[in-house]
Amino acid sequence: MSSLENQELEVEQANDRFYRAFESLDIHRMESVWATDGPVKCIHPGWGLRSGWPAVRDSWVLIFNNTAGIRLEITDVEISVRGDLAWIICVEQVHMTVDGEPQESRVLATNMYSKRPSGWLMIHHHGSPVIGGPPA
Amino acid sequence: MSSLENQELEVEQANDRFYRAFESLDIHRMESVWATDGPVKCIHPGWGLRSGWPAVRDSWVLIFNNTAGIRLEITDVEISVRGDLAWIICVEQVHMTVDGEPQESRVLATNMYSKRPSGWLMIHHHGSPVIGGPPA
Repeated sequence: MSSLENQELEVEQANDRFYRAFESLDIHRMESVWATDGPVKCIHPGWGLRSGWPAVRDSWVLIFNNTAGIRLEITDVEISVRGDLAWIICVEQVHMTVDGEPQESRVLATNMYSKRPSGWLMIHHHGSPVIGGPPA
Repeated sequence: MSSLENQELEVEQANDRFYRAFESLDIHRMESVWATDGPVKCIHPGWGLRSGWPAVRDSWVLIFNNTAGIRLEITDVEISVRGDLAWIICVEQVHMTVDGEPQESRVLATNMYSKRPSGWLMIHHHGSPVIGGPPA
């Protein structure tokens, strides 16, 4: 396996860890996948920009406190690696239960990762709703 | 001015060129700001992913053909440069006239640029609607 393929695999694993942390609704697990010492940024579907870990962390706490359960099926994963920076564009198939009713939605995400001594950590998450428009 | 400040200025100018091309509704001008020879990607607010220049180009043609006039005021610009890769997160204050009525909306964008011999060219645009949610 080439070095680039190795890197891509590592980045895909980091992306998986992010989504498993999201599903766990555990802020400590979510904290472990972010580059909390850097200028991280986060855009949740429909929300404004959160900049810096304290503001990003608050947004996850808010989401986790208001979510009873969530399952995220990740598809259409496209990985790019350039040196110690990588980004993934993927589709999140979101399965939730709201007021006892199952709800499905689709989110498109741009996720950026920075390579640190401990591995690839998230520096930017931009999630946006797919609400129709012309087919891709 | 440091080299990094120079790079950031160049990237901000590339971002300005992208938005002026958008306002011009001229596909040739839009084409000139993209790295059309690479694996470019584009997500318009609410739409699915467009991957590769032919699909990205088609999306702009569709938008330009359905837009009589648009003005984009760009605010909250945050620039990051890492080697020959850069990304900007910014707010697009969108002013349009639809059926004779002025319409305003806000879009959050993640724009990625790659440095080429001819300058910084766009490789990824992710625009998403700001539709409320908790304040940033």
